Amino acid sequence: MANALKLITPRLAEVERFIGAQLAEAPDSVREAGSYVFEGGGKRLRPAMVLLVSRLLGYQGDRDVRYGAVIEMIHTATLVHDDIIDHAALRRGRPTANHKWGNQLTVLLGDWLYTRSMELALEVDDVPVMRVLSRATIEMIEGEMIGLRMSGRLDTDEATYMDIVRRKTAGIFAAATSIPALFEPAFARHRDTLMEYGTHLGVCFQIADDLLDLTASESSLGKPVFSDLREGKLTLPFIRLLPRLRDWERATLAQVLTTGHLSADAESDIRALLDRHGIVEEVRRVAMSFAERATACAVTLPGGIERDALAEAPRYVIDREF
Amino acid sequence: MANALKLITPRLAEVERFIGAQLAEAPDSVREAGSYVFEGGGKRLRPAMVLLVSRLLGYQGDRDVRYGAVIEMIHTATLVHDDIIDHAALRRGRPTANHKWGNQLTVLLGDWLYTRSMELALEVDDVPVMRVLSRATIEMIEGEMIGLRMSGRLDTDEATYMDIVRRKTAGIFAAATSIPALFEPAFARHRDTLMEYGTHLGVCFQIADDLLDLTASESSLGKPVFSDLREGKLTLPFIRLLPRLRDWERATLAQVLTTGHLSADAESDIRALLDRHGIVEEVRRVAMSFAERATACAVTLPGGIERDALAEAPRYVIDREF
Repeated sequence: MANALKLITPRLAEVERFIGAQLAEAPDSVREAGSYVFEGGGKRLRPAMVLLVSRLLGYQGDRDVRYGAVIEMIHTATLVHDDIIDHAALRRGRPTANHKWGNQLTVLLGDWLYTRSMELALEVDDVPVMRVLSRATIEMIEGEMIGLRMSGRLDTDEATYMDIVRRKTAGIFAAATSIPALFEPAFARHRDTLMEYGTHLGVCFQIADDLLDLTASESSLGKPVFSDLREGKLTLPFIRLLPRLRDWERATLAQVLTTGHLSADAESDIRALLDRHGIVEEVRRVAMSFAERATACAVTLPGGIERDALAEAPRYVIDREF
Repeated sequence: MANALKLITPRLAEVERFIGAQLAEAPDSVREAGSYVFEGGGKRLRPAMVLLVSRLLGYQGDRDVRYGAVIEMIHTATLVHDDIIDHAALRRGRPTANHKWGNQLTVLLGDWLYTRSMELALEVDDVPVMRVLSRATIEMIEGEMIGLRMSGRLDTDEATYMDIVRRKTAGIFAAATSIPALFEPAFARHRDTLMEYGTHLGVCFQIADDLLDLTASESSLGKPVFSDLREGKLTLPFIRLLPRLRDWERATLAQVLTTGHLSADAESDIRALLDRHGIVEEVRRVAMSFAERATACAVTLPGGIERDALAEAPRYVIDREF
């Protein structure tokens, strides 16, 4: 994995430059707030997938950099709008854009990133890629809407959770891994496998993310722990935990979910409940099962260091610490 | 004008059905909030322009209905996001979407409308039209950003005002009037004229809108009078008025602009200043000069009832009462 990532490092730097060039030409407000958001870091996992798959397929052009940038811009648009929706104050250890510039500019920054992304795809006349991107974007928005509707509700079931995850997280991963298959006709035969790989990787990523919210420290997360619960989101660990609780234990959870407030007592009570029922290990096994499915897809792809990296990526995503 | 509008009434009804069909297939949240917003009315001026120009050019297909709907959806996306930005509580006499469903869902509703609009253009493989739409959308977003930056500032000058108007209002009018010229190669020779016509019409529409905020009643506007000033926006009438005021008169305006509060005394003081300096008549003349430019473009188009309607539309836009 590490070796394969080294191979794409120069291309990832080009993705950064490509994004920087878009912001440089933008109006002052976009340039300032946009630069702040992109400089805030992020793992650039989605562009890395575009670059890695492009390399695996033997692609020689420069659409990998363009679409790596476009996908990161779309992803960032959803993040800044999600932070407004969640009233989030911190992301990656720094104030969110909405906290720093207000909701007003942040709504427009997201709109600008969405629309400019589409325009960047239009510049190269790429209708099939645009179809994938606009569909993935709509799925993300719809997933967020379903999530908003379930917000604060204890009765979110696992099927609804999986529906939200597939739309909100897995769709854009599947777009990232499968778009390179549209770059040349000879690549098309790998498209379904790459899409399935990306979907499983995305689900695996989201479940690992749910767990990090419970197991990581505030400093490594760059935001408070138990953020999901405080924001009213019932993640997989809690969906698994709830049916095993007594009424009064459930009430503790319900209060955090509906008030957004987590006292030190409630936090240690909830940690004890998660421990007693072995939830973290159980949910980790669920994530692993998706990791295995992703890896099973990857191994059918053409061999080489890139293929091996794709096969290892799901484990890497589960073992990450932020 | 009235006769020409009668001719396109059946097509306008198809535009409504087309939008309705998109909402019918959408997730519950979009369907509910989206239906509410579209049922709230609006003059459907932009789709009417697409239909009227298509008819003038002799277009026989059904892309006029599709793009009429797409343009109204993009326009509506900007409205719902603008109402979040302006903290608006009323539009067209009813609570705004953000007031009724909260900022969270309304951010997503706008995102959905933007993205679904692009997808509707993608369905028919129309890259040149998509280019026009995405550019007009970016201009609107950038115009809103420049406006936001000038918000609450007395030193907004006329050049900045015109820049904002061209981006925020005129661009989508120009898209509406010129997109039909892309429907068939034979129509292309009218494209520049139609774009210029739409730009002038849009500027004329916006200046008339500025005046309505001062001259219409709350019941015909469907929102409080002097809304622009309360939202921190210095419109053309005030840009013209300010240099003629004494310091203490200017201070009254500044207070409304920065606090958002308009007392009954301040309102009558400001009305007296506008009257004393003949601002409404002066700004109306500015709107008329753009109307004349639009009409001068229209008369060079192929003759007929549709051409006459386009020639009359700017006057209609200035004389409207809401």
